[in-house]
Amino acid sequence: MMTESRNNLKFSSDLGLEMYQLIEQLYPICRSITGNGVRQTLKIIQQLLPFLNIQEVSSGTPVFDWTVPREWNIRDAYVKNAQGERIIDFQKSNLHVLSYSLPVKAKITLGALKYHIFKIHDHPDWIPYRTSYYNERWGFCLSHNQLQELADEEYEVCIDSSLSNGSLTYGEYFLQGESQDEVLFSCHVCHPSLCNDNLSGIALVTFLAKHLSVLSRKYSYRFLFIPGTIGSITWLSENQTQIFKIKHGLVLAGLGAPGKYTYKKSRQGDTEIDRAMIHVLKHFGQDHEILEFFPYGYDERQYCSPAFNLPIGCLMRPMHGRYAEYHTSGDNLDFVHPQYLAESFSTCFATLQILENNKTFVNQNPHCEPQLGRRGLYNTIGDKELAMLWVLNLSDGHHSLLSIAERSGLPFAQVQSAAEILSKHGLLKEL
Amino acid sequence: MMTESRNNLKFSSDLGLEMYQLIEQLYPICRSITGNGVRQTLKIIQQLLPFLNIQEVSSGTPVFDWTVPREWNIRDAYVKNAQGERIIDFQKSNLHVLSYSLPVKAKITLGALKYHIFKIHDHPDWIPYRTSYYNERWGFCLSHNQLQELADEEYEVCIDSSLSNGSLTYGEYFLQGESQDEVLFSCHVCHPSLCNDNLSGIALVTFLAKHLSVLSRKYSYRFLFIPGTIGSITWLSENQTQIFKIKHGLVLAGLGAPGKYTYKKSRQGDTEIDRAMIHVLKHFGQDHEILEFFPYGYDERQYCSPAFNLPIGCLMRPMHGRYAEYHTSGDNLDFVHPQYLAESFSTCFATLQILENNKTFVNQNPHCEPQLGRRGLYNTIGDKELAMLWVLNLSDGHHSLLSIAERSGLPFAQVQSAAEILSKHGLLKEL
Amino acid sequence: MMTESRNNLKFSSDLGLEMYQLIEQLYPICRSITGNGVRQTLKIIQQLLPFLNIQEVSSGTPVFDWTVPREWNIRDAYVKNAQGERIIDFQKSNLHVLSYSLPVKAKITLGALKYHIFKIHDHPDWIPYRTSYYNERWGFCLSHNQLQELADEEYEVCIDSSLSNGSLTYGEYFLQGESQDEVLFSCHVCHPSLCNDNLSGIALVTFLAKHLSVLSRKYSYRFLFIPGTIGSITWLSENQTQIFKIKHGLVLAGLGAPGKYTYKKSRQGDTEIDRAMIHVLKHFGQDHEILEFFPYGYDERQYCSPAFNLPIGCLMRPMHGRYAEYHTSGDNLDFVHPQYLAESFSTCFATLQILENNKTFVNQNPHCEPQLGRRGLYNTIGDKELAMLWVLNLSDGHHSLLSIAERSGLPFAQVQSAAEILSKHGLLKEL
Repeated sequence: MMTESRNNLKFSSDLGLEMYQLIEQLYPICRSITGNGVRQTLKIIQQLLPFLNIQEVSSGTPVFDWTVPREWNIRDAYVKNAQGERIIDFQKSNLHVLSYSLPVKAKITLGALKYHIFKIHDHPDWIPYRTSYYNERWGFCLSHNQLQELADEEYEVCIDSSLSNGSLTYGEYFLQGESQDEVLFSCHVCHPSLCNDNLSGIALVTFLAKHLSVLSRKYSYRFLFIPGTIGSITWLSENQTQIFKIKHGLVLAGLGAPGKYTYKKSRQGDTEIDRAMIHVLKHFGQDHEILEFFPYGYDERQYCSPAFNLPIGCLMRPMHGRYAEYHTSGDNLDFVHPQYLAESFSTCFATLQILENNKTFVNQNPHCEPQLGRRGLYNTIGDKELAMLWVLNLSDGHHSLLSIAERSGLPFAQVQSAAEILSKHGLLKEL
Repeated sequence: MMTESRNNLKFSSDLGLEMYQLIEQLYPICRSITGNGVRQTLKIIQQLLPFLNIQEVSSGTPVFDWTVPREWNIRDAYVKNAQGERIIDFQKSNLHVLSYSLPVKAKITLGALKYHIFKIHDHPDWIPYRTSYYNERWGFCLSHNQLQELADEEYEVCIDSSLSNGSLTYGEYFLQGESQDEVLFSCHVCHPSLCNDNLSGIALVTFLAKHLSVLSRKYSYRFLFIPGTIGSITWLSENQTQIFKIKHGLVLAGLGAPGKYTYKKSRQGDTEIDRAMIHVLKHFGQDHEILEFFPYGYDERQYCSPAFNLPIGCLMRPMHGRYAEYHTSGDNLDFVHPQYLAESFSTCFATLQILENNKTFVNQNPHCEPQLGRRGLYNTIGDKELAMLWVLNLSDGHHSLLSIAERSGLPFAQVQSAAEILSKHGLLKEL
Repeated sequence: MMTESRNNLKFSSDLGLEMYQLIEQLYPICRSITGNGVRQTLKIIQQLLPFLNIQEVSSGTPVFDWTVPREWNIRDAYVKNAQGERIIDFQKSNLHVLSYSLPVKAKITLGALKYHIFKIHDHPDWIPYRTSYYNERWGFCLSHNQLQELADEEYEVCIDSSLSNGSLTYGEYFLQGESQDEVLFSCHVCHPSLCNDNLSGIALVTFLAKHLSVLSRKYSYRFLFIPGTIGSITWLSENQTQIFKIKHGLVLAGLGAPGKYTYKKSRQGDTEIDRAMIHVLKHFGQDHEILEFFPYGYDERQYCSPAFNLPIGCLMRPMHGRYAEYHTSGDNLDFVHPQYLAESFSTCFATLQILENNKTFVNQNPHCEPQLGRRGLYNTIGDKELAMLWVLNLSDGHHSLLSIAERSGLPFAQVQSAAEILSKHGLLKEL
């Protein structure tokens, strides 16, 4: 029943460090929506989650309105100047290559090269991250400063990539619980060397899975490591008959950097996961913002499409597009910190504890208050007594513990603890 | 389908001028709740709306709890001083006579005359507008300054009016649409030389009717030019069996002067016309206030009486009683402007476009997002794409385009345009 | 129908004085949850309410989860110093003795005595009020200053009390109305010399009962003078089959001191008593706060326990625990004032008048407004006319007069008065 760390939601800094180390290990890999980068990533995760199931779905497989694309792989890429020096070098940063770039090998003028170059103005030292999955082209991304330095001469461009039939790869990890009802965690694994978006999400999902694997669980848990958009579409398409089991879910994306938590509610907007997450954010006292669902962002777009409308929200810190480092080389190993990873873990875990423990009880002495004093329950500290009174008063079969926590303003753990004491004394029974 | 000016809600200044010219033409006429002033007014409107139906309802006709009153007409009125000079002259301003004054011709002292005089303090140069429809009396209205100047001498008073059996006159203009469902516009035509209240409303209703007459229409439209209170009561009484057809409606009163728009909701408070009007006012960015229904004001009092409870709101600018010029000679041709008339026209027309186009669609690809990219719909400008995602996500059969506009915060026209593009690509079907 | 003072909710200062005089008379008595202090108190109330029923429930009687406790009585108590002087004297203030103290007679050192002493820091001159009903012990309460003065010498302590089988005493007063439906008033009578908490509540309930006894009443009224917690539990236990008759109720506690009114809603939160009380507080224009129900405080805890969930709120001024004098000797005859008692009476009485007069009418002329003018109802003062229009517009069978008052923002009395006028003219009929 996941009670082990209930009263200690601040996990040790060791855990933050372990997540950070996984990020360090995954950082150099060039991931995209398909290809060996994803496979290599999942293999590393498998060292922590040995039963991680690595799935391959062939290119060309129809998945709802989409088709699994050809597989993209890249070995090397560079731009050499007239002196033969690699002035743009994929080996230094895989962000330098437009993701899904077609192979190219050519001599080209600066003017022609510029048509294939992406940059950002605001941070002249940062390389932007750009993709072109469904529009066949090639390109290089570089910093504004790098671009300024390019002399007007002939360049040799080389992208040693391949785009050909293969498969889309994703990871799935399942933990059976007492119930068939499932909690889904989903993170995207398609971004190359970008730490917050989304190596942080990958690390969190990995360690939540690892942590939950050794606890007893009311719910079954499913953890998806998927390429963004096409990955969730593929998974939903392949698992249509099982989707009804998902009772709660979270997309985790960007949770290792400083800034405000943003929780984006599910499309339904008032589901238990929404309420549990909002409760946790409120009571942890950390700066946060709650947003109504909107149909762009991460894979919640697909999970919350009208035919599924799943109770799945999205937690971010900070929110995509709201930090300068977003989708640039600034989102590197300096941008994420073990401390924030640990805090995000605690936030997620506390939310799970609400889901796991959110029972509804019935007061067995509903006529007036029971005499707590003769049971030795009255002279306890004020807050405990208060929680007991709330639980007794609202345990009429219509209020779950989360409802009681919401109405009383008390933290869930305190309400849960009161319910356990009262149950022990025969004053409550689970509905 | 009224699409002609969707993207051009700012109508030409010509339209404002045309409305202003109608006001100029109607300004000198002495209107009341019955009589030739109303007939003359409707004849002028008929020049713009040739199929305007001018109805006469005989004095004495029972209309619910009321009776159509006797008809009042006035030819001349004055107060002459001892020198025989017309010091108060109906020919100079018809506001000088208390509306529905009984005929009188007498010599009278200043003291006795004062019992029959109405004035206002706050604006010493303005003549107030007063009526006594159901209480038989006579009176003159004059400015505070004029009153001060009256010497203590004998006066000759003359009101050459008549109050006798005749009829109540109103105008009705109907435009058949594809559907029997109707949109009602109502304005009061009983005020004499007052421009904002309500020659502005008359002008707006006239030009909305004229403008709609040449467009294709989903709804049928009915336009009423009626004396206030007794006119709407009479019309409702005479049309009881047809009233169920009215699905939306607006009372337009005072819409040509500077100041804040006030939209007073229907008694139901959350009807489509309420939501459409609020959406338009919000997105037009003009200063406005939304008021809940209250049972006094204009003819919405009757339309929203409990037995009818019609979805009819009232748009004003500014609201009655909230401007100094209200019901005084200050509400003259200088107080209203073509610009405000044109703005009010745009506001009303934009609201109608929502009603006309507020369909509910069903996403034909509800499992995940459809691949907009392969349809060439993805690399369009950001807002358009966003509107498409909202329409797709919420088109589950439970959200009209107006609901989608409300939830997304996007302007209706943008949502409508997205729905049209998606429909063309087979991604949406109308419910 | 309780119309006598409708338009004069400010009761005479005489009434405040009469309530204050009752408080003066009851102040010296040492009350607790059982014993002669309560009996003596009820006897005095009986002088004002001759038909007050004084009930005795034997010690040991099971009442839901509780048992009626043994009866506690006290004759004298003191602490004498080495010189034999009564330096702590029950005769000077009954607050000096911990309520329900076991009898004791002993010589004791200062050190040992201190284990039995209760004091408060913040107000060094005030004696705190403390109880130990269900934990057998003895103790003295004294001011911080008094404690400082105690020399390190031997003391003689004496509490001449008894705790033995007897009974719990409460008072009940019933007024039959036209209907079996009841309004309940409840006040706690277990506090010793404390004026606001709750001699003020006792005085209010007494005089409300006295006042209502000579008026005609739609509802029956029940007034309970009970010891806190165990008293309401006992009464509920003894009256289980009758409780369904209670349609509205108020716990009155602490209503004679300066400060903000606090109305704590019933657990249901939107009952008629809640709405009526909120309406009155809002329209009386006095400083007030509305709180949602919470399961601690006064006897509303029991009335609103889940099996009963009665529509009973609690009115306080100021709220328990929010004033320094609360549960100390500072809550004395100087702390309460006739003026505040009279105001609280008016507030309660105005609320009752809403309950008594909150009918639902049906407009007999629902098609448009009726012609008020020909009935002489139009040229009355603006507000009256306005109230009539609201009543007519909303009297569709779905809006009570209180609903109309809430929606219109008009005071209930004005809405009621309009309904009466309209009824006289045949324009309304009670549903």
